Amino acid sequence: MTPAAPTPAYRRLSVEERRSQLLDAALGLFAHRAPEDVSLDDVAEAAGVSRPLVYRYFPGGKQQLYEAALRSAAEELRLCFDEPHEGPLRPRLSRALDRYLTFVDQHDAGFSALLQGGSVVETSRTTAMVDGVRRAAAVHIMRHLGVGDPGPRLRMTVRTWITAVEAASLIWLDEDKQPPFGELRDWLVEQFVAVLSVTAARDPQTASVVAALASADG
Amino acid sequence: MTPAAPTPAYRRLSVEERRSQLLDAALGLFAHRAPEDVSLDDVAEAAGVSRPLVYRYFPGGKQQLYEAALRSAAEELRLCFDEPHEGPLRPRLSRALDRYLTFVDQHDAGFSALLQGGSVVETSRTTAMVDGVRRAAAVHIMRHLGVGDPGPRLRMTVRTWITAVEAASLIWLDEDKQPPFGELRDWLVEQFVAVLSVTAARDPQTASVVAALASADG
Repeated sequence: MTPAAPTPAYRRLSVEERRSQLLDAALGLFAHRAPEDVSLDDVAEAAGVSRPLVYRYFPGGKQQLYEAALRSAAEELRLCFDEPHEGPLRPRLSRALDRYLTFVDQHDAGFSALLQGGSVVETSRTTAMVDGVRRAAAVHIMRHLGVGDPGPRLRMTVRTWITAVEAASLIWLDEDKQPPFGELRDWLVEQFVAVLSVTAARDPQTASVVAALASADG
Repeated sequence: MTPAAPTPAYRRLSVEERRSQLLDAALGLFAHRAPEDVSLDDVAEAAGVSRPLVYRYFPGGKQQLYEAALRSAAEELRLCFDEPHEGPLRPRLSRALDRYLTFVDQHDAGFSALLQGGSVVETSRTTAMVDGVRRAAAVHIMRHLGVGDPGPRLRMTVRTWITAVEAASLIWLDEDKQPPFGELRDWLVEQFVAVLSVTAARDPQTASVVAALASADG
């Protein structure tokens, strides 16, 4: 009698670790295919686990998988702007963008797929999740700017810049990550200061934010 | 015998006029409802015409109606940036933006509905149409800037600004069209010059565009 062949050595993972492993596998697949073309079987294969295991974690099928992946990405993106309210403003913004772009860099085309959604059934719910990330970013930025009650001009400036960051990230992925990471980050920070300065010329509230930015870091 | 009651006095329209009347009615409905909740019957009612007439123009049902409305809007938006290549650059850009914002102003929430799509079945085709408008705008702008072969930094600047214009338009509608039309237009032109100037600091090609902008209009 020969000794029993070793069973495949699955690493023992906690429920949360397993879930996040499966979501990572799904995000990797979203990078190359539209969300509606990614099946739970594909996720099982990509993660190297059994199909029943994936079905146990996502009994609601691919729509549930897609929403879970989007929610997990949204959660991570929200944390990017959660930066201590200490020290000069510009480096704070730079650190937040650094985290955001690291997420974009790591998730690559999966980031595009998530943001653009594809034609999954429940678009309104997923759109709301993506909008939630944008709103959270705007709230964080207003807090960093020390503004409690932003007027329409400052609000529009910040929200427009957030969309610009998102667009620049998508273009960056599309352009084989050119220009380099650090340049993109610095460029986006400088853009923010530039558009704030444009708004400052016609809005006293934004003018004081720009003055604070100039005095606090220089 | 009394004389026959007059039949309802439909204005006689050409095929093209009728089609565009129906599309206008549809766009008006998209302003308040998701595209998938607008039926051909609703369009008939809104346009004050018979149901069979609408069905004759859009035998493919609401998906065809939505795509036709989007295509017509896309065509109109493309024309906005079709501006003679004469005279100073800044006023040209200002005139193009004036036409774009007039479209946004007139179509109101229908503009948002069209851009955001909703969960109509054929998302990829409609997304491609919206992307086509953005690409056409970028091509027009590069021609106005006199740049035949834009590098990645200039390309990213222009594409990012186009998204910013779109985002600002959506926010503007969301904020009850504040700030006023003319201020929004001028602000967006100034933003463009500001972000180009930021890029110019690290890109010689953009630097010459900014120099031309400064010398041509001032």
